[in-house]
Amino acid sequence: MGSMPSTKFQVIQTVPVAKGTPEYEAQIQSVLDEFAAKVPKEFYIPQSVVDNPPKNVTAVPRESGILSEQELEITEKYDAVSLAEAIAAKKLTAVAVATAFAKRAIIAHQLTCCLTEWFMDEAIERAKSLDEYLERTGKTVGPLHGVPISVKEHMPLAGHYAASGFFDVRNKSKTDCQMMAILRNAGAVFYCKTIQPQGIMHLESVSSYGRVLNPYNINLSAGGSTGGEAALIAMRGSILGIGTDIGGSVRGPAGFCGIYGYKATSYMLPQKDFLPDGFAAELNVICSTGPMCLTMRDMDLFCKVLLDAKPHLADPKLIPIPWTGLNGLTAPSPLKIGFYMNDGAIVPQPPVARALEWARAQLEKSPNFKVTTFEPYGAARAIKNIRKAYWPDGRQAVEKHLAKTGEPMFSLTDWVLKDATQDEIPASAVLQQRLERDRFRCEFAEHWTSQDVDVVIGPLFVGPACEHDTAFHWNYTAFWNYVDYPGVVFPTPVKAEKKGVESYASETPLSKECEHVRELWQKGDFEGAPINLQIVARKYHDNELFAALAAIKDVLQLP
Amino acid sequence: MGSMPSTKFQVIQTVPVAKGTPEYEAQIQSVLDEFAAKVPKEFYIPQSVVDNPPKNVTAVPRESGILSEQELEITEKYDAVSLAEAIAAKKLTAVAVATAFAKRAIIAHQLTCCLTEWFMDEAIERAKSLDEYLERTGKTVGPLHGVPISVKEHMPLAGHYAASGFFDVRNKSKTDCQMMAILRNAGAVFYCKTIQPQGIMHLESVSSYGRVLNPYNINLSAGGSTGGEAALIAMRGSILGIGTDIGGSVRGPAGFCGIYGYKATSYMLPQKDFLPDGFAAELNVICSTGPMCLTMRDMDLFCKVLLDAKPHLADPKLIPIPWTGLNGLTAPSPLKIGFYMNDGAIVPQPPVARALEWARAQLEKSPNFKVTTFEPYGAARAIKNIRKAYWPDGRQAVEKHLAKTGEPMFSLTDWVLKDATQDEIPASAVLQQRLERDRFRCEFAEHWTSQDVDVVIGPLFVGPACEHDTAFHWNYTAFWNYVDYPGVVFPTPVKAEKKGVESYASETPLSKECEHVRELWQKGDFEGAPINLQIVARKYHDNELFAALAAIKDVLQLP
Repeated sequence: MGSMPSTKFQVIQTVPVAKGTPEYEAQIQSVLDEFAAKVPKEFYIPQSVVDNPPKNVTAVPRESGILSEQELEITEKYDAVSLAEAIAAKKLTAVAVATAFAKRAIIAHQLTCCLTEWFMDEAIERAKSLDEYLERTGKTVGPLHGVPISVKEHMPLAGHYAASGFFDVRNKSKTDCQMMAILRNAGAVFYCKTIQPQGIMHLESVSSYGRVLNPYNINLSAGGSTGGEAALIAMRGSILGIGTDIGGSVRGPAGFCGIYGYKATSYMLPQKDFLPDGFAAELNVICSTGPMCLTMRDMDLFCKVLLDAKPHLADPKLIPIPWTGLNGLTAPSPLKIGFYMNDGAIVPQPPVARALEWARAQLEKSPNFKVTTFEPYGAARAIKNIRKAYWPDGRQAVEKHLAKTGEPMFSLTDWVLKDATQDEIPASAVLQQRLERDRFRCEFAEHWTSQDVDVVIGPLFVGPACEHDTAFHWNYTAFWNYVDYPGVVFPTPVKAEKKGVESYASETPLSKECEHVRELWQKGDFEGAPINLQIVARKYHDNELFAALAAIKDVLQLP
Repeated sequence: MGSMPSTKFQVIQTVPVAKGTPEYEAQIQSVLDEFAAKVPKEFYIPQSVVDNPPKNVTAVPRESGILSEQELEITEKYDAVSLAEAIAAKKLTAVAVATAFAKRAIIAHQLTCCLTEWFMDEAIERAKSLDEYLERTGKTVGPLHGVPISVKEHMPLAGHYAASGFFDVRNKSKTDCQMMAILRNAGAVFYCKTIQPQGIMHLESVSSYGRVLNPYNINLSAGGSTGGEAALIAMRGSILGIGTDIGGSVRGPAGFCGIYGYKATSYMLPQKDFLPDGFAAELNVICSTGPMCLTMRDMDLFCKVLLDAKPHLADPKLIPIPWTGLNGLTAPSPLKIGFYMNDGAIVPQPPVARALEWARAQLEKSPNFKVTTFEPYGAARAIKNIRKAYWPDGRQAVEKHLAKTGEPMFSLTDWVLKDATQDEIPASAVLQQRLERDRFRCEFAEHWTSQDVDVVIGPLFVGPACEHDTAFHWNYTAFWNYVDYPGVVFPTPVKAEKKGVESYASETPLSKECEHVRELWQKGDFEGAPINLQIVARKYHDNELFAALAAIKDVLQLP
């Protein structure tokens, strides 16, 4: 890449996003200008890449010449656990680490449009003080001393902008929310915030700041709503980020980008002030949170740090089940694993089936696992119900936000609102949704018991990362929000082949939606998209889920 | 009591209850007639007692001559733990136990109006089969083999009537709800269902079947909504009953009648199908459940039996924190106990202050406790909020139930509806209640932490058991529902004195409500009413609460 660096800060986009009123777009432009003004010219990617980007942009940071050898090593050879160790052992300084990730993050942003804010100076300042503390006291401030963490836009971080999915509610946070305070206290270094879609309610990440591209194939989505994190981490512009998930927003993008994503059972991990104005969906479907990262042990570290801080003492919503994670419970022997190839409503696209077959074959080789087929249960009903439960305050609640600033409604926002009523529903209707939810949950719990499994492995989406503006069918993630089971998506060695190489095993679609997904497959080019799978456990069985992950780690060659 | 037994089945009532339409009253009468027809004449209490009942009726069962010496011993000398032991050791038969409690229950009913159904025959049938099982196998069916358990009207028990607080929804249950199934499976013998008030939403128990009287002073209420249980247990017509509590409905009546009552944190104990049509209040205030009984260890046994059955596998709402109870955790040493004499809004009537001073003095003598004063926090706000949160579906929801059958609205129903809107509120207003609730809970959690206590001991009501139709102020129970902290009410040796003996220490009321409570004190005669106190712990710290109970047991001479 010998070409000249660009003279203008540019962010690659493959498909334009809808525009709002001129006044609105002027405001957005000023936010983007402010962002661009903070980026030193020496971090601009080559103009040639901007003009003619490769489909897979994951190699660009290494090839761009912007990062030093040490910065490449820091960003490519470590996870959070090993970074914390290296900094604590003074093999790396916090400043070197913060510098490397901040630089790589801004490269990643130019390639995938993953950031809403970038504050390298603040990060280096903080890292300096951590280095000085370690030098002075011989001690770290905590288990995350010097570990860089990227943060989704809506999560309040002192001195930075947060918005609950709409421009009208964008505001500068005065203080850290509870989770950020715990992480900061444990030594984390914050350096950027990441893009989420409008309403935080797409399974892609389309916002007025731009659309997040999939690093493995920029014609595909990075997923959403935590798509900025997923793209950034897959680019190794971060090794540890934080998502929220009420329909797949951690697991979807993590799966689209080939990284880990963990959606905890509701009220297991702190979320205080994540959505300070509330979210009516939570009257019946509670949003979850969890880490997105590159290794299993980093998920474990993240949860341990949070729960060791006893966040339930400040937020009594949280259930004080202590974190035992990967090194706590021992998985049953044999571990009973149910596989499901489809949910009875939509057959996933071919590469997903291939990944499932691969995983099942690996596990069946070992006497440590009893692998069975898990019969799907009630997916169509659950999805229909949850789509309604998302919007007790009606479509009008979204329209009001948009009207305030002239923000356009994106097509995926319109899609997720299709089953919503125009106006808000009354309390008795909210109650009926609650009762139906609880009926379903009890029926499903009974079904799970009848299947005699400890964990279930299945798809996390109807296909690989989808083409832009086509993440319509949330079946494989939202179902687990509806029943509130914890889930982890994990990478497999499977990647989508070139267009035309793979096809469905059966010709018969299960439903209208299934047919729709087949059409998308015929039209699309998914080459290079990573295929993750999802493992889930019973509600509140998060520690059991991690015990199962520890048990399957080696057989599935998991990082 | 040499007088002749009555020739007619009669239930003592001191204050009449409001009447509905003639059609409605005819239906009620036929239910009462059906009840009466099942009671053998030899169990009728003497006419002289009906004509001229003593204020304190607790001695009547012993004096009535209806019970044999063995029946008196069975009903007076045992708790559930020792009954289970005696039956397992074949010292007592299940039939003898069932007979004794069924007989004593029907006596108690005639004195306090505590039952909605009584089915001695079924109980004896069941007890027989348990005796035969034990004889045949040498084993008990479970830890409650032969233990009689009384059940609140609304809890579904196969073959018996349940109603969620209104006559129009009264129906015969086809199957046991989850909790009853677990208890039955563990060997429990069911023999009666107990009165609850209209809407299950009084802190007394006034229903069209009659008004539950306090056994220690029939001019006082037995409390509510689980007042039937409380009176029955205080009469030793039951040693173990079950209540529900969304504002004090376990703790209030237990306290009024001098027995134990435990309100668990929400979702700790099974409640599946307790209210099959739902209850809109639960959109923001979750109802809790728990045992009512005569000894601390019986509460422990009850919870252990329920949670050992892993009810969370069938109802994933339930949080799988295992029960450790009295013999699990060790209380911190010293145990930090905060006392509060009032909540900043209403000063309790004099005997309550006396009981608190007594308990505090006992605990202060021991180095095992660090006793401090707990500053109250936000009681008026919490009570205002919870009174609104009870009725998102508005007053009209209650009126609709009543209109269907011509059921009258009782004055305490009207009282609890005073802050409700007429019509139901929209989803956004339900959300605002949620947000305010969560703000309050976080503020209170912070306050609790600032007070540096493990548990808090305080009043459970604004006074002793109140005079009929005057349980207006729910402050000391409903507050803990609003924050969802677990609480146990426990007996003290203190009883209310004769009218005129005791008076307030200070002349200045804290509020309009406080003044109201003083007026009720001036007018009332509370002689003989037992005084309980309440101990609470942080949300989900139910096991810690029981560890604290174990620690204070001896010092407070607790049964």
